Amino acid sequence: MAESWVNYAERIGSDLHLELSGPGSRRAALIGALRDAVRSGRLAPGTRLPPYRSLAADLGVARNTVADAYAELVAEGWLTARQGSGTRVAERARPLHPAVPPKAPAPPSPAPPPRAHAAQRNRPTPHDLRQGTPDASAFPRSAWLASYRRALHQAPNEVFGPGDPAGRPELRAALATYLARARGVRTEPDRIVICSGFAHALRLLFHSGNGGGGRRGQILRGPLAVEAYGLPFHRELLAAEGVRTVPLPLDEHGARIDRLSRERAVLLTPAHQFPTGGPLHAERRAAVVDWAGARGAVVLEDDYDGEFRYDRRPVGALQSLDPERVILIGSVSKSLSPAVRLGWMVLPERYVGDVLAAKGEREAWASVLDQLALADLIVSGAYDRHVRRMRQRYRGRRDRLVAALAERAPHVEVSGVAAGLHAVLRLPPGTERPAVGAAVRQGVALDALAEFRHPDTDMPAHDGLVVGYATPPEHAYGAALEALCAALTPATPVSNHPSATTYQ
Amino acid sequence: MAESWVNYAERIGSDLHLELSGPGSRRAALIGALRDAVRSGRLAPGTRLPPYRSLAADLGVARNTVADAYAELVAEGWLTARQGSGTRVAERARPLHPAVPPKAPAPPSPAPPPRAHAAQRNRPTPHDLRQGTPDASAFPRSAWLASYRRALHQAPNEVFGPGDPAGRPELRAALATYLARARGVRTEPDRIVICSGFAHALRLLFHSGNGGGGRRGQILRGPLAVEAYGLPFHRELLAAEGVRTVPLPLDEHGARIDRLSRERAVLLTPAHQFPTGGPLHAERRAAVVDWAGARGAVVLEDDYDGEFRYDRRPVGALQSLDPERVILIGSVSKSLSPAVRLGWMVLPERYVGDVLAAKGEREAWASVLDQLALADLIVSGAYDRHVRRMRQRYRGRRDRLVAALAERAPHVEVSGVAAGLHAVLRLPPGTERPAVGAAVRQGVALDALAEFRHPDTDMPAHDGLVVGYATPPEHAYGAALEALCAALTPATPVSNHPSATTYQ
Repeated sequence: MAESWVNYAERIGSDLHLELSGPGSRRAALIGALRDAVRSGRLAPGTRLPPYRSLAADLGVARNTVADAYAELVAEGWLTARQGSGTRVAERARPLHPAVPPKAPAPPSPAPPPRAHAAQRNRPTPHDLRQGTPDASAFPRSAWLASYRRALHQAPNEVFGPGDPAGRPELRAALATYLARARGVRTEPDRIVICSGFAHALRLLFHSGNGGGGRRGQILRGPLAVEAYGLPFHRELLAAEGVRTVPLPLDEHGARIDRLSRERAVLLTPAHQFPTGGPLHAERRAAVVDWAGARGAVVLEDDYDGEFRYDRRPVGALQSLDPERVILIGSVSKSLSPAVRLGWMVLPERYVGDVLAAKGEREAWASVLDQLALADLIVSGAYDRHVRRMRQRYRGRRDRLVAALAERAPHVEVSGVAAGLHAVLRLPPGTERPAVGAAVRQGVALDALAEFRHPDTDMPAHDGLVVGYATPPEHAYGAALEALCAALTPATPVSNHPSATTYQ
Repeated sequence: MAESWVNYAERIGSDLHLELSGPGSRRAALIGALRDAVRSGRLAPGTRLPPYRSLAADLGVARNTVADAYAELVAEGWLTARQGSGTRVAERARPLHPAVPPKAPAPPSPAPPPRAHAAQRNRPTPHDLRQGTPDASAFPRSAWLASYRRALHQAPNEVFGPGDPAGRPELRAALATYLARARGVRTEPDRIVICSGFAHALRLLFHSGNGGGGRRGQILRGPLAVEAYGLPFHRELLAAEGVRTVPLPLDEHGARIDRLSRERAVLLTPAHQFPTGGPLHAERRAAVVDWAGARGAVVLEDDYDGEFRYDRRPVGALQSLDPERVILIGSVSKSLSPAVRLGWMVLPERYVGDVLAAKGEREAWASVLDQLALADLIVSGAYDRHVRRMRQRYRGRRDRLVAALAERAPHVEVSGVAAGLHAVLRLPPGTERPAVGAAVRQGVALDALAEFRHPDTDMPAHDGLVVGYATPPEHAYGAALEALCAALTPATPVSNHPSATTYQ
C-alpha cells in the first residue's frame, strides 16, 4: 500500500512533502492532510487506514507521529479505532460536491437515494416469470469453483498474457467435442471463436471483413431477415449497427423460408423458435440451406436453448446441414448463468480470419480465466451433469405449469412447451393487455407476446403471454404459479363471447 | 449426459428410434449409429462415452445391448477401452468434410496444420520486450483464487441472474475507495461503470446518448484530439467507430494543450504519456480542464499505468481537478493481467444514464464472477500488496535496464523511466530501423517509436525504441536485457558522424 498512501497524502495536502521535510510540523501536516481527505470524501467511510508502521515508512516520519495523528483524528470523530479491525474512516455523510471549497467543513447531508439501475428497476414484483434467464439459485457453485481452481492451477503462464482473440484453445477444443455430441454440430476448434455472448457475436459478425470501415467485403450486410417474432433487443442491437431487419412470417412449421428473397442473411432460432416455441420443420431446414447456397447468403443460427428439450424427438443444430453456410451462435447464459459472460461462434472456415481481425489482436472481451474454468467444467463432465439436472427441473416446472393452467384456466392454450425455459400462453383476441394487467396486480412479472413482434410484419397478431418458468428459485415457483393462475382465472364474464373474457 | 446422447444418436441414425422400437435390431442399430458418429467426426477422437447404464437408460435398451455395442466397436477399432478411463473414441483421422458422403469410410488424412492465430504470430522471438503487458508469470494465483472462492461463497443468488449493466455494486464501492486512495479520484460508486477494458469503454462512450443511431445528443463526438504519439490500436478503434482523431503535438511538458481548438473531446495519458513517458505538466492539467469547461468539451483520461511510479513525486489523476469534465478510464490489464477482462469508467454524473443505456439492460460484457473476485481482492488488501510487489519488481528491472544501457550503449538516451512498464530509448536520427533489425537478429521483439506516431502530426519525428521491461518472466529478463544490449552496442562505425552509427 506504501506508495498509494504517499500519493494520496501528496495530493491532499498539495504541499505535504514540503511541510514534512520542514522541522516540527509533521504531525500537524499529517493530521491536516488526513482530515481533508476524509472531509472531501477522498477517503470513503469505512476505509481502513494502513498500519502506523507502513504509513510512517512511506512518509519517512516516526511511527509515533502517525500514531499521534490517528489518535487526534479519532478524538475529533473523523476516524474510528476498534480492537482487531484497525483504524477506519468514520461513517458519516458522504463526499462533498466539487463546488464546495476544499477546506470548508462539510455540512452533514443525507446520502443520495440509491440509483435505480435497469436491473433493479426491472425487478419490482415478487413473482418473476419473465423469460430469458435460468434459475439463478441453481448455479453449480461447487462444481464451478472446482473447475476454476483446477484450471487456475494448471494454467501455463501465457494465460495471463495478452491472449488469443480466438479464445483459449482448451475451451475451443472442449466446445468442438461437446457441440458435436450434444447438438450435432460439425466443426473443429479452429473454426470456433469465443466471445462474451450473443450480442457480442452479432456485433462482431457485422463488423467483420469490412477492412477499415467500409461496407464492401463485409461478411454480413443488411438487410437481414429475422423471424417476425423475436427478441426486441436483437433488433435494437442490429439497428444500432445500421442493419435493417426484414421480418419473415411464422406458421406452424416455423419461419416461412419461402418468403426469403434478396436478403444477404437470415437470423433463425431453428431448435425452438423464440418466443413462439416450435422447431423449424425439416423441409424448411433444407430449404433455408439451399437458399443460402443459391444466393451466396449466410444463415445465423441462434442456438439459445438447444440443450433443453423434453418430449419430442431431439432437434439437432441446423449448422450440421451446411457448416459452410451456417454460423451457429451459442452461450452459457441459459445453461449455466449470464454471469459467466461466455459465448461462441461456430464459423465457416472462410470467415474465421475476418472475425478474428474484427475482434482485435488480443483478447479484449472474454474473461480468460472463465474460459479455462468452462473448458474444465465441460471436459470433466460436470457441465453435462448440470444440464441434465436443470433439464429435469425445468421439465418438472413445465409440467406443473401445464397442469395448473389446465385446471385453473382451461381457456388458455399453452404452446411451445416441448423445450426451452419458457412457454407461450395463447389468449383469446383482445385479452392480452388485460391479462398482463391482472398479472401485475397479482405481483407477477411477465412479458406480453406483442412485445416480441417485429413492427414491420404483416402476419396476423396473436394475443399471448410469454412465461419464463425457469426464472424463480425452486422454492418460489409454486407461489409464482399460483399467482399466475389467479391472474388468469376468468372473473365473471361480461359477455358470452369468448374473446370478451376478462381477467381479474 | 443422458439426453445429449439421445440427441446425438437420434441425429446420427436419423431413424434410430424407429429401429430401436422394432424387434431384434437394437444392438445393430446402436452399433451402426455409433460407428457413423465416429466416422463422420461428430464424436471426436478422445471423447469419453457414457457408462453403459446411462446410455441404456436413455435409449430404453438393456444394459447388455450397450455393452455389446461398445465391445463390437472396440473390436473394430473405432473405440478404445482402458481400465479406469472408460470407453473412448479412438484417436484417428479427424472429421470428414461435408462433401464426403455420410456413410463412406473416411480416408486417413493428416491433421491440418494448426492455425497461426494473431497471438501466436506475434510471439515468435525468444526475448519479448514489447510494451503493453505485465509479467504474466507474476499473476497472484493464490490470492486471486482465495478472493474468487470467498466471493463465490458469499454471492447472493441474484449474482447469477441478468446483472446490472453498471457492474456489481461490491466492485464499484471497492473501486471508489481504492481510486480515491491510490489515484486521488473524486467519485462515488454510482458514477462508476464497469466494462471489459479500455476498448470497450471507448466504444461505449462513443455510442452513448445517441438515442437510436443518430449523432445528435451523443455525449462524445468527433473530432477527438489525441496525443501525437499513442497506441495505433486506439486510433484504429476510433476510426472503426467513424471518429476522426486530430493529433496534439508533445513537448517536454506533455501534450500541447494550447493547440486544442474546436474539438469536442481530448484523449490524454496525463500520469505517464504513452509511449514517450512524461507526466502532463501541472499548468497543462489546469489548462485542459479550463478548456473543457469553456468549450463544453470532455477530457478522457487513460489512466493505464497510474499505479506504477518509481522516483518522482506521485502524479494523481487529472480527474480530481474536475470530476464533471473528466472521464477516467482504467483497468487491471497492467496491474494484474489482461486475462481478467475488467475495466472501469469514472463518469460525470450527467453521463451515467446514457452510458448505462448504451451498455444495455443487462450485463452483457464483463464477467460478474471476476467482478466479485476483484472487489474482494481490493477490499482484502491483496490487490495493494500485489501492486506494491510488482512496483518493486518493475523498478528493479527499470534500474537494470538503465544501468546496462549506460554501460553497454552509452549513446542511447533512456527516457520516460520514472514510471510505468516501459521505457523509450532515444536513438540518433536515422538509426531506428537498423536498430529494430539488429534487435530482431538478437531474438528481441520490441516496437519502433515510429509505430506510435499519429500519421497526421506535424511534430518532428524522433528515432527511438519502446522497450516493455515488464513483459518477460523474472528469470528471463537478464537474457532479454543482454540480447537488447548486444543489439544496441555499436559495431564498427562506418563514419564519424554520430547519426551514422550502425548496429550490428
